[in-house]
Amino acid sequence: MPLGEEKNGACDRSIYVNNPHLDSMTDDILYHFNLGTSTHDLPAMFGDVKFVCVGGSPWRMKSFIEYIAKELGLSEPNADYPNICAGTDRYAMYKVGPVLSVSHGMGIPSISIMLHELIKLLYHARCTDVTVVRIGTSGGIGLKPGTVVVTKQSVDSVFQPRLEQIILGKPVVRSTELDGELAEELLQCSKDLAEFETVIGNTMCTLDFYEGINILKFHNCKVSFFFFLHGWGLLLLNALSWYRSSSAGWCLLLIRRRR
Amino acid sequence: MPLGEEKNGACDRSIYVNNPHLDSMTDDILYHFNLGTSTHDLPAMFGDVKFVCVGGSPWRMKSFIEYIAKELGLSEPNADYPNICAGTDRYAMYKVGPVLSVSHGMGIPSISIMLHELIKLLYHARCTDVTVVRIGTSGGIGLKPGTVVVTKQSVDSVFQPRLEQIILGKPVVRSTELDGELAEELLQCSKDLAEFETVIGNTMCTLDFYEGINILKFHNCKVSFFFFLHGWGLLLLNALSWYRSSSAGWCLLLIRRRR
Repeated sequence: MPLGEEKNGACDRSIYVNNPHLDSMTDDILYHFNLGTSTHDLPAMFGDVKFVCVGGSPWRMKSFIEYIAKELGLSEPNADYPNICAGTDRYAMYKVGPVLSVSHGMGIPSISIMLHELIKLLYHARCTDVTVVRIGTSGGIGLKPGTVVVTKQSVDSVFQPRLEQIILGKPVVRSTELDGELAEELLQCSKDLAEFETVIGNTMCTLDFYEGINILKFHNCKVSFFFFLHGWGLLLLNALSWYRSSSAGWCLLLIRRRR
Repeated sequence: MPLGEEKNGACDRSIYVNNPHLDSMTDDILYHFNLGTSTHDLPAMFGDVKFVCVGGSPWRMKSFIEYIAKELGLSEPNADYPNICAGTDRYAMYKVGPVLSVSHGMGIPSISIMLHELIKLLYHARCTDVTVVRIGTSGGIGLKPGTVVVTKQSVDSVFQPRLEQIILGKPVVRSTELDGELAEELLQCSKDLAEFETVIGNTMCTLDFYEGINILKFHNCKVSFFFFLHGWGLLLLNALSWYRSSSAGWCLLLIRRRR
Protein backbone atom coordinates (compact mmCIF):
# COMPACT_ATOMS: atom_id res chain seq x y z
CA MET A 1 0.00 0.00 0.00
CA PRO A 2 2.35 2.71 -1.18
CA LEU A 3 1.53 6.21 -0.06
CA GLY A 4 1.86 8.82 -2.78
CA GLU A 5 2.71 6.72 -5.82
CA GLU A 6 1.99 7.36 -9.45
CA LYS A 7 -1.71 7.11 -10.30
CA ASN A 8 -3.03 7.19 -13.84
CA GLY A 9 0.33 8.47 -15.08
CA ALA A 10 0.48 11.46 -12.72
CA CYS A 11 1.96 11.58 -9.24
CA ASP A 12 -0.39 13.74 -7.20
CA ARG A 13 1.39 13.10 -3.86
CA SER A 14 -1.85 11.66 -2.47
CA ILE A 15 -2.68 8.21 -1.15
CA TYR A 16 -3.00 5.57 -3.86
CA VAL A 17 -5.11 2.49 -3.23
CA ASN A 18 -4.75 -0.36 -5.71
CA ASN A 19 -8.47 -1.10 -5.84
CA PRO A 20 -10.32 -0.33 -9.09
CA HIS A 21 -13.72 -0.63 -7.38
CA LEU A 22 -13.09 2.10 -4.84
CA ASP A 23 -14.08 5.10 -6.94
CA SER A 24 -17.32 3.51 -8.10
CA MET A 25 -18.58 2.72 -4.61
CA THR A 26 -21.38 4.93 -3.37
CA ASP A 27 -20.47 4.13 0.22
CA ASP A 28 -17.30 2.69 1.72
CA ILE A 29 -17.85 1.45 5.25
CA LEU A 30 -14.68 1.30 7.33
CA TYR A 31 -16.36 -1.18 9.61
CA HIS A 32 -13.72 -1.67 12.30
CA PHE A 33 -13.32 2.11 12.73
CA ASN A 34 -17.09 2.66 12.78
CA LEU A 35 -16.56 5.29 10.06
CA GLY A 36 -17.80 5.52 6.47
CA THR A 37 -17.85 7.78 3.45
CA SER A 38 -21.62 8.36 3.59
CA THR A 39 -21.82 8.84 7.35
CA HIS A 40 -18.71 10.95 7.96
CA ASP A 41 -17.05 13.88 6.18
CA LEU A 42 -13.66 12.21 6.01
CA PRO A 43 -11.83 15.07 4.18
CA ALA A 44 -13.00 17.52 6.86
CA MET A 45 -12.11 15.15 9.70
CA PHE A 46 -8.77 13.86 8.43
CA GLY A 47 -7.69 15.91 5.38
CA ASP A 48 -4.85 17.65 7.29
CA VAL A 49 -3.27 14.41 8.60
CA LYS A 50 0.48 14.22 7.87
CA PHE A 51 1.64 11.71 10.49
CA VAL A 52 -0.05 8.49 11.56
CA CYS A 53 1.41 6.78 14.62
CA VAL A 54 0.09 3.29 15.34
CA GLY A 55 0.61 0.99 18.33
CA GLY A 56 -1.03 -2.01 19.97
CA SER A 57 -2.69 -0.64 23.09
CA PRO A 58 -5.62 1.83 22.98
CA TRP A 59 -4.54 3.32 26.32
CA ARG A 60 -1.01 3.91 25.09
CA MET A 61 -2.24 5.56 21.90
CA LYS A 62 -4.32 7.95 23.98
CA SER A 63 -1.27 8.74 26.15
CA PHE A 64 0.71 9.29 22.97
CA ILE A 65 -1.74 11.86 21.58
CA GLU A 66 -1.69 13.74 24.92
CA TYR A 67 2.10 13.73 24.83
CA ILE A 68 2.34 14.84 21.21
CA ALA A 69 -0.24 17.60 21.75
CA LYS A 70 2.05 19.08 24.42
CA GLU A 71 5.14 18.65 22.25
CA LEU A 72 3.43 20.44 19.34
CA GLY A 73 2.09 23.22 21.59
CA LEU A 74 -1.45 22.19 20.67
CA SER A 75 -2.65 21.11 24.10
CA GLU A 76 -5.10 23.18 26.10
CA PRO A 77 -5.73 23.09 29.86
CA ASN A 78 -8.04 20.18 30.78
CA ALA A 79 -8.21 19.17 27.12
CA ASP A 80 -9.70 15.77 26.46
CA TYR A 81 -9.01 13.83 23.31
CA PRO A 82 -12.14 11.88 22.38
CA ASN A 83 -11.83 8.46 20.79
CA ILE A 84 -12.89 8.98 17.15
CA CYS A 85 -13.79 5.27 16.97
CA ALA A 86 -15.86 5.33 20.19
CA GLY A 87 -18.68 3.48 18.41
CA THR A 88 -16.60 0.29 18.20
CA ASP A 89 -14.34 -1.64 20.56
CA ARG A 90 -12.07 -2.93 17.79
CA TYR A 91 -9.64 0.00 17.59
CA ALA A 92 -9.19 3.41 19.21
CA MET A 93 -8.24 6.56 17.28
CA TYR A 94 -7.16 10.02 18.46
CA LYS A 95 -6.15 13.15 16.56
CA VAL A 96 -4.39 16.38 17.35
CA GLY A 97 -3.38 18.77 14.55
CA PRO A 98 -1.66 16.80 11.78
CA VAL A 99 -1.10 13.70 13.96
CA LEU A 100 -3.39 10.67 14.03
CA SER A 101 -2.82 8.03 16.73
CA VAL A 102 -4.44 4.62 16.15
CA SER A 103 -4.35 1.37 18.13
CA HIS A 104 -4.06 -1.93 16.24
CA GLY A 105 -4.36 -4.69 18.84
CA MET A 106 -1.99 -7.64 18.83
CA GLY A 107 -0.80 -9.65 15.83
CA ILE A 108 -0.46 -9.38 12.05
CA PRO A 109 -4.16 -10.12 11.36
CA SER A 110 -5.26 -7.40 13.76
CA ILE A 111 -2.91 -4.74 12.34
CA SER A 112 -3.69 -5.84 8.77
CA ILE A 113 -7.40 -5.06 9.19
CA MET A 114 -6.55 -1.69 10.69
CA LEU A 115 -4.06 -0.82 7.92
CA HIS A 116 -6.51 -1.78 5.15
CA GLU A 117 -9.08 0.60 6.58
CA LEU A 118 -6.55 3.28 7.52
CA ILE A 119 -5.14 3.48 3.98
CA LYS A 120 -8.66 3.77 2.57
CA LEU A 121 -9.48 6.42 5.18
CA LEU A 122 -6.44 8.49 4.13
CA TYR A 123 -7.42 8.04 0.48
CA HIS A 124 -11.03 9.13 1.03
CA ALA A 125 -9.82 12.07 3.13
CA ARG A 126 -7.55 13.11 0.22
CA CYS A 127 -4.50 13.27 2.48
CA THR A 128 -1.10 14.06 0.95
CA ASP A 129 2.50 13.43 2.06
CA VAL A 130 1.62 11.09 4.90
CA THR A 131 4.21 9.33 7.08
CA VAL A 132 3.07 6.22 8.94
CA VAL A 133 5.10 5.01 11.92
CA ARG A 134 4.49 2.00 14.16
CA ILE A 135 5.59 2.56 17.78
CA GLY A 136 5.82 -0.14 20.43
CA THR A 137 7.86 -2.20 22.83
CA SER A 138 9.86 -5.23 21.78
CA GLY A 139 12.33 -7.77 23.03
CA GLY A 140 15.93 -6.90 22.20
CA ILE A 141 19.22 -8.72 21.82
CA GLY A 142 22.50 -7.13 22.83
CA LEU A 143 20.77 -3.88 23.73
CA LYS A 144 20.39 -1.98 26.96
CA PRO A 145 16.75 -2.00 28.12
CA GLY A 146 15.14 1.28 27.07
CA THR A 147 17.10 1.56 23.84
CA VAL A 148 15.05 2.94 20.95
CA VAL A 149 15.42 0.84 17.81
CA VAL A 150 14.48 2.21 14.41
CA THR A 151 13.75 -0.79 12.19
CA LYS A 152 15.54 -0.87 8.86
CA GLN A 153 14.32 -4.31 7.83
CA SER A 154 11.59 -6.56 9.11
CA VAL A 155 12.05 -10.32 8.75
CA ASP A 156 9.72 -13.28 9.31
CA SER A 157 10.32 -16.22 11.69
CA VAL A 158 12.75 -17.82 9.25
CA PHE A 159 14.81 -14.65 8.70
CA GLN A 160 13.32 -13.67 5.33
CA PRO A 161 12.47 -10.01 4.60
CA ARG A 162 9.03 -10.86 3.29
CA LEU A 163 5.39 -11.24 4.24
CA GLU A 164 3.74 -14.29 2.72
CA GLN A 165 -0.03 -14.23 2.54
CA ILE A 166 -2.39 -16.85 1.17
CA ILE A 167 -4.92 -15.11 -1.08
CA LEU A 168 -7.72 -17.28 -2.49
CA GLY A 169 -5.64 -20.36 -1.70
CA LYS A 170 -2.45 -19.15 -3.38
CA PRO A 171 0.68 -17.73 -1.73
CA VAL A 172 1.50 -14.08 -2.47
CA VAL A 173 4.86 -12.79 -1.23
CA ARG A 174 5.30 -9.10 -0.43
CA SER A 175 8.37 -7.08 0.45
CA THR A 176 8.86 -5.73 3.96
CA GLU A 177 11.07 -2.89 2.70
CA LEU A 178 11.03 0.20 4.89
CA ASP A 179 11.98 3.82 4.34
CA GLY A 180 15.73 4.04 5.01
CA GLU A 181 15.84 7.81 4.56
CA LEU A 182 13.18 8.33 7.23
CA ALA A 183 15.00 5.92 9.55
CA GLU A 184 18.18 8.01 9.22
CA GLU A 185 16.21 11.21 9.86
CA LEU A 186 14.72 9.74 13.04
CA LEU A 187 18.15 8.58 14.18
CA GLN A 188 19.48 12.10 13.64
CA CYS A 189 16.56 13.57 15.63
CA SER A 190 17.45 11.28 18.50
CA LYS A 191 21.13 12.29 18.32
CA ASP A 192 20.11 15.95 18.46
CA LEU A 193 17.92 15.27 21.49
CA ALA A 194 20.61 13.18 23.21
CA GLU A 195 18.11 11.91 25.79
CA PHE A 196 18.14 8.17 25.09
CA GLU A 197 20.13 5.63 23.13
CA THR A 198 18.89 5.00 19.59
CA VAL A 199 20.10 2.51 16.99
CA ILE A 200 18.98 1.31 13.58
CA GLY A 201 18.39 -2.46 13.46
CA ASN A 202 16.40 -5.38 12.12
CA THR A 203 13.21 -6.76 13.61
CA MET A 204 12.02 -10.36 13.61
CA CYS A 205 8.27 -10.77 13.44
CA THR A 206 6.49 -13.97 14.45
CA LEU A 207 2.89 -15.16 14.63
CA ASP A 208 2.97 -16.05 18.30
CA PHE A 209 4.20 -14.15 21.34
CA TYR A 210 5.05 -17.14 23.52
CA GLU A 211 6.19 -19.87 21.15
CA GLY A 212 7.25 -17.97 18.02
CA ILE A 213 10.21 -16.42 19.80
CA ASN A 214 10.08 -18.89 22.67
CA ILE A 215 9.66 -16.36 25.45
CA LEU A 216 10.21 -19.05 28.10
CA LYS A 217 13.65 -19.98 26.83
CA PHE A 218 14.45 -16.39 25.99
CA HIS A 219 14.01 -15.31 29.56
CA ASN A 220 16.01 -18.29 30.84
CA CYS A 221 18.79 -17.77 28.27
CA LYS A 222 18.89 -21.52 27.77
CA VAL A 223 19.36 -21.77 24.04
CA SER A 224 21.92 -20.55 21.58
CA PHE A 225 19.22 -19.42 19.13
CA PHE A 226 19.35 -15.86 20.34
CA PHE A 227 23.12 -15.63 20.21
CA PHE A 228 22.82 -16.84 16.63
CA LEU A 229 20.27 -14.13 15.97
CA HIS A 230 22.55 -11.52 17.46
CA GLY A 231 25.42 -12.66 15.31
CA TRP A 232 23.07 -12.38 12.37
CA GLY A 233 22.62 -8.69 13.17
CA LEU A 234 19.13 -8.98 14.54
CA LEU A 235 18.41 -6.51 17.28
CA LEU A 236 14.72 -6.89 17.95
CA LEU A 237 12.36 -9.76 18.52
CA ASN A 238 8.96 -8.40 17.83
CA ALA A 239 6.44 -11.14 18.43
CA LEU A 240 3.18 -10.95 16.52
CA SER A 241 4.85 -9.48 13.51
CA TRP A 242 4.97 -5.73 13.92
CA TYR A 243 3.60 -5.94 17.38
CA ARG A 244 4.55 -5.69 20.98
CA SER A 245 6.74 -8.36 22.38
CA SER A 246 8.84 -8.30 25.50
CA SER A 247 10.42 -5.45 27.33
CA ALA A 248 13.80 -4.34 26.08
CA GLY A 249 13.41 -1.88 23.25
CA TRP A 250 11.12 0.88 22.04
CA CYS A 251 10.63 -0.07 18.45
CA LEU A 252 9.84 2.26 15.60
CA LEU A 253 8.75 0.51 12.46
CA LEU A 254 8.33 2.80 9.49
CA ILE A 255 5.66 1.62 7.15
CA ARG A 256 6.29 4.05 4.33
CA ARG A 257 6.02 7.70 3.48
CA ARG A 258 5.89 9.83 0.37
CA ARG A 259 9.38 10.78 -0.80
CA MET B 1 -3.24 -27.69 25.17
CA PRO B 2 -5.35 -30.67 26.19
CA LEU B 3 -7.67 -30.10 29.12
CA GLY B 4 -7.77 -33.03 31.54
CA GLU B 5 -5.22 -35.39 30.04
CA GLU B 6 -3.03 -37.92 31.75
CA LYS B 7 -0.37 -36.35 33.95
CA ASN B 8 2.41 -38.35 35.56
CA GLY B 9 0.52 -41.56 34.83
CA ALA B 10 -2.72 -40.51 36.51
CA CYS B 11 -5.65 -38.72 34.98
CA ASP B 12 -6.83 -36.28 37.63
CA ARG B 13 -9.40 -34.56 35.37
CA SER B 14 -7.63 -31.24 35.89
CA ILE B 15 -5.90 -28.94 33.44
CA TYR B 16 -2.55 -30.22 32.22
CA VAL B 17 0.04 -27.76 30.96
CA ASN B 18 3.01 -29.22 29.11
CA ASN B 19 5.55 -26.95 30.79
CA PRO B 20 8.03 -28.53 33.21
CA HIS B 21 9.02 -25.12 34.62
CA LEU B 22 5.55 -24.16 35.77
CA ASP B 23 5.56 -25.88 39.15
CA SER B 24 8.96 -24.48 40.12
CA MET B 25 8.02 -20.86 39.46
CA THR B 26 7.46 -18.74 42.56
CA ASP B 27 5.31 -16.34 40.56
CA ASP B 28 3.57 -16.75 37.23
CA ILE B 29 2.50 -13.40 35.80
CA LEU B 30 -0.38 -13.67 33.32
CA TYR B 31 0.65 -10.33 31.88
CA HIS B 32 -2.09 -9.73 29.32
CA PHE B 33 -4.81 -10.50 31.89
CA ASN B 34 -3.12 -8.35 34.56
CA LEU B 35 -3.35 -11.36 36.88
CA GLY B 36 -0.67 -13.43 38.63
CA THR B 37 -0.19 -16.26 41.09
CA SER B 38 1.43 -14.04 43.73
CA THR B 39 -1.00 -11.13 43.37
CA HIS B 40 -4.30 -13.00 43.01
CA ASP B 41 -5.88 -16.03 44.69
CA LEU B 42 -6.61 -17.80 41.42
CA PRO B 43 -8.21 -20.94 42.95
CA ALA B 44 -10.63 -18.75 44.93
CA MET B 45 -11.40 -16.54 41.92
CA PHE B 46 -11.67 -19.22 39.23
CA GLY B 47 -11.67 -22.68 40.87
CA ASP B 48 -15.37 -23.30 40.08
CA VAL B 49 -15.09 -22.51 36.34
CA LYS B 50 -16.55 -25.25 34.12
CA PHE B 51 -17.25 -23.35 30.90
CA VAL B 52 -15.07 -20.77 29.19
CA CYS B 53 -16.66 -18.89 26.29
CA VAL B 54 -14.31 -16.75 24.23
CA GLY B 55 -15.00 -14.23 21.46
CA GLY B 56 -13.31 -11.28 19.74
CA SER B 57 -15.06 -8.21 21.08
CA PRO B 58 -14.90 -7.12 24.74
CA TRP B 59 -18.35 -5.53 24.48
CA ARG B 60 -19.90 -8.72 23.12
CA MET B 61 -18.30 -10.83 25.86
CA LYS B 62 -19.83 -8.53 28.47
CA SER B 63 -23.24 -8.87 26.76
CA PHE B 64 -22.74 -12.62 26.73
CA ILE B 65 -22.12 -12.82 30.48
CA GLU B 66 -25.24 -10.70 31.15
CA TYR B 67 -27.24 -13.03 28.91
CA ILE B 68 -25.88 -16.22 30.44
CA ALA B 69 -26.44 -14.89 33.99
CA LYS B 70 -30.15 -14.55 33.16
CA GLU B 71 -30.27 -17.96 31.49
CA LEU B 72 -28.70 -19.59 34.55
CA GLY B 73 -30.93 -17.70 36.98
CA LEU B 74 -27.87 -16.07 38.50
CA SER B 75 -28.62 -12.46 37.59
CA GLU B 76 -29.71 -9.94 40.18
CA PRO B 77 -31.54 -6.65 39.60
CA ASN B 78 -29.12 -3.91 38.52
CA ALA B 79 -26.26 -6.38 38.70
CA ASP B 80 -23.04 -5.22 37.12
CA TYR B 81 -20.37 -7.60 35.95
CA PRO B 82 -16.98 -6.01 36.52
CA ASN B 83 -14.17 -6.64 34.04
CA ILE B 84 -11.75 -8.93 35.92
CA CYS B 85 -8.95 -7.68 33.65
CA ALA B 86 -9.76 -3.99 34.18
CA GLY B 87 -6.07 -3.26 34.84
CA THR B 88 -5.19 -3.92 31.20
CA ASP B 89 -6.69 -2.99 27.82
CA ARG B 90 -5.49 -6.18 26.11
CA TYR B 91 -8.42 -8.46 26.97
CA ALA B 92 -11.66 -8.26 28.96
CA MET B 93 -12.91 -11.05 31.27
CA TYR B 94 -16.24 -11.57 33.03
CA LYS B 95 -17.52 -14.36 35.28
CA VAL B 96 -20.85 -15.56 36.53
CA GLY B 97 -21.16 -18.85 38.41
CA PRO B 98 -19.26 -21.55 36.50
CA VAL B 99 -19.03 -19.50 33.27
CA LEU B 100 -16.03 -17.38 32.29
CA SER B 101 -16.37 -15.03 29.30
CA VAL B 102 -13.13 -13.73 27.76
CA SER B 103 -12.41 -11.51 24.75
CA HIS B 104 -9.50 -12.37 22.48
CA GLY B 105 -9.26 -9.55 19.93
CA MET B 106 -8.77 -10.29 16.24
CA GLY B 107 -6.44 -12.84 14.67
CA ILE B 108 -4.53 -16.01 15.55
CA PRO B 109 -1.68 -14.20 17.34
CA SER B 110 -4.12 -12.32 19.54
CA ILE B 111 -6.13 -15.41 20.52
CA SER B 112 -2.93 -17.44 20.95
CA ILE B 113 -1.64 -15.09 23.66
CA MET B 114 -5.00 -15.23 25.41
CA LEU B 115 -5.20 -19.04 25.23
CA HIS B 116 -1.65 -19.50 26.58
CA GLU B 117 -2.54 -17.41 29.62
CA LEU B 118 -6.06 -18.83 29.97
CA ILE B 119 -4.83 -22.42 30.10
CA LYS B 120 -2.26 -21.47 32.73
CA LEU B 121 -4.94 -19.58 34.67
CA LEU B 122 -7.20 -22.69 34.68
CA TYR B 123 -4.22 -24.80 35.76
CA HIS B 124 -3.24 -22.49 38.62
CA ALA B 125 -6.91 -22.27 39.69
CA ARG B 126 -7.01 -26.10 39.81
CA CYS B 127 -10.10 -26.21 37.59
CA THR B 128 -11.49 -29.59 36.51
CA ASP B 129 -13.71 -30.75 33.64
CA VAL B 130 -13.54 -27.50 31.72
CA THR B 131 -15.20 -26.96 28.32
CA VAL B 132 -13.84 -24.12 26.17
CA VAL B 133 -15.98 -22.75 23.35
CA ARG B 134 -15.22 -19.98 20.89
CA ILE B 135 -18.30 -17.98 19.82
CA GLY B 136 -18.40 -15.44 17.00
CA THR B 137 -19.71 -14.33 13.64
CA SER B 138 -18.36 -15.62 10.36
CA GLY B 139 -18.93 -15.55 6.64
CA GLY B 140 -20.88 -18.54 5.37
CA ILE B 141 -21.36 -20.38 2.10
CA GLY B 142 -24.68 -21.91 1.14
CA LEU B 143 -26.21 -20.95 4.47
CA LYS B 144 -29.06 -18.66 5.40
CA PRO B 145 -27.78 -15.61 7.30
CA GLY B 146 -28.22 -16.21 11.01
CA THR B 147 -27.53 -19.94 10.82
CA VAL B 148 -25.51 -21.25 13.76
CA VAL B 149 -22.60 -23.40 12.65
CA VAL B 150 -20.88 -25.77 15.05
CA THR B 151 -17.39 -26.35 13.69
CA LYS B 152 -16.33 -29.98 13.32
CA GLN B 153 -13.02 -29.25 11.63
CA SER B 154 -10.97 -26.11 11.21
CA VAL B 155 -8.77 -25.81 8.12
CA ASP B 156 -6.10 -23.31 7.10
CA SER B 157 -6.08 -21.15 3.94
CA VAL B 158 -5.00 -24.12 1.81
CA PHE B 159 -7.68 -26.49 3.16
CA GLN B 160 -5.44 -28.42 5.56
CA PRO B 161 -6.72 -29.32 9.07
CA ARG B 162 -3.57 -28.09 10.75
CA LEU B 163 -1.94 -25.10 12.41
CA GLU B 164 1.66 -24.60 11.40
CA GLN B 165 3.77 -22.51 13.73
CA ILE B 166 7.41 -21.55 13.43
CA ILE B 167 9.09 -22.17 16.79
CA LEU B 168 12.73 -21.10 17.10
CA GLY B 169 12.97 -21.00 13.31
CA LYS B 170 11.54 -24.48 12.74
CA PRO B 171 8.01 -25.40 11.59
CA VAL B 172 5.84 -27.29 14.08
CA VAL B 173 2.51 -28.63 12.80
CA ARG B 174 -0.38 -29.13 15.19
CA SER B 175 -3.75 -30.75 14.72
CA THR B 176 -6.91 -28.65 14.67
CA GLU B 177 -9.03 -31.58 15.84
CA LEU B 178 -12.16 -30.58 17.73
CA ASP B 179 -14.49 -32.41 20.10
CA GLY B 180 -17.06 -34.18 17.86
CA GLU B 181 -19.07 -35.46 20.80
CA LEU B 182 -19.53 -31.94 22.18
CA ALA B 183 -20.47 -30.68 18.70
CA GLU B 184 -23.22 -33.31 18.51
CA GLU B 185 -24.45 -32.38 22.00
CA LEU B 186 -24.66 -28.71 21.02
CA LEU B 187 -26.51 -29.62 17.82
CA GLN B 188 -29.00 -31.64 19.87
CA CYS B 189 -29.48 -28.69 22.28
CA SER B 190 -30.31 -26.48 19.32
CA LYS B 191 -32.79 -29.04 17.96
CA ASP B 192 -34.49 -29.17 21.36
CA LEU B 193 -34.71 -25.36 21.45
CA ALA B 194 -35.95 -25.17 17.83
CA GLU B 195 -35.37 -21.41 17.75
CA PHE B 196 -32.76 -21.11 14.99
CA GLU B 197 -31.16 -23.21 12.31
CA THR B 198 -28.01 -25.06 13.38
CA VAL B 199 -25.64 -27.20 11.34
CA ILE B 200 -22.29 -28.88 11.88
CA GLY B 201 -19.66 -27.76 9.34
CA ASN B 202 -16.06 -26.93 8.59
CA THR B 203 -14.40 -23.58 9.07
CA MET B 204 -11.62 -22.03 7.01
CA CYS B 205 -9.24 -19.82 8.95
CA THR B 206 -6.99 -17.24 7.31
CA LEU B 207 -4.45 -14.70 8.51
CA ASP B 208 -6.14 -11.70 6.95
CA PHE B 209 -9.74 -10.53 6.98
CA TYR B 210 -9.74 -8.68 3.66
CA GLU B 211 -7.31 -10.55 1.42
CA GLY B 212 -7.12 -14.03 2.97
CA ILE B 213 -10.71 -14.77 1.99
CA ASN B 214 -10.90 -11.91 -0.50
CA ILE B 215 -13.82 -10.10 1.07
CA LEU B 216 -14.12 -7.76 -1.92
CA LYS B 217 -14.69 -10.57 -4.39
CA PHE B 218 -16.74 -12.52 -1.88
CA HIS B 219 -19.28 -9.75 -1.60
CA ASN B 220 -19.36 -9.25 -5.38
CA CYS B 221 -19.61 -13.02 -6.04
CA LYS B 222 -17.16 -12.59 -8.88
CA VAL B 223 -15.06 -15.69 -8.52
CA SER B 224 -15.70 -19.39 -8.54
CA PHE B 225 -13.44 -19.94 -5.51
CA PHE B 226 -16.34 -19.92 -3.11
CA PHE B 227 -18.43 -22.30 -5.14
CA PHE B 228 -15.43 -24.59 -5.11
CA LEU B 229 -15.24 -24.23 -1.35
CA HIS B 230 -18.90 -25.05 -1.03
CA GLY B 231 -18.49 -28.16 -3.16
CA TRP B 232 -15.66 -29.10 -0.84
CA GLY B 233 -18.09 -29.05 2.06
CA LEU B 234 -16.84 -25.87 3.62
CA LEU B 235 -19.53 -23.90 5.34
CA LEU B 236 -17.71 -21.10 7.08
CA LEU B 237 -15.08 -18.60 6.13
CA ASN B 238 -13.63 -17.42 9.36
CA ALA B 239 -11.02 -14.80 8.65
CA LEU B 240 -8.23 -14.41 11.14
CA SER B 241 -8.24 -18.07 11.97
CA TRP B 242 -10.83 -18.62 14.66
CA TYR B 243 -12.04 -15.09 14.49
CA ARG B 244 -14.83 -12.96 13.26
CA SER B 245 -15.24 -12.56 9.56
CA SER B 246 -18.26 -11.45 7.63
CA SER B 247 -21.89 -11.64 8.52
CA ALA B 248 -23.63 -14.89 7.72
CA GLY B 249 -23.15 -17.38 10.50
CA TRP B 250 -22.82 -17.56 14.25
CA CYS B 251 -19.84 -19.81 14.64
CA LEU B 252 -19.12 -22.08 17.56
CA LEU B 253 -15.63 -23.46 17.59
CA LEU B 254 -14.98 -26.00 20.28
CA ILE B 255 -11.46 -25.90 21.48
CA ARG B 256 -11.57 -29.03 23.61
CA ARG B 257 -13.11 -30.35 26.75
CA ARG B 258 -12.49 -33.14 29.18
CA ARG B 259 -14.17 -36.35 28.10
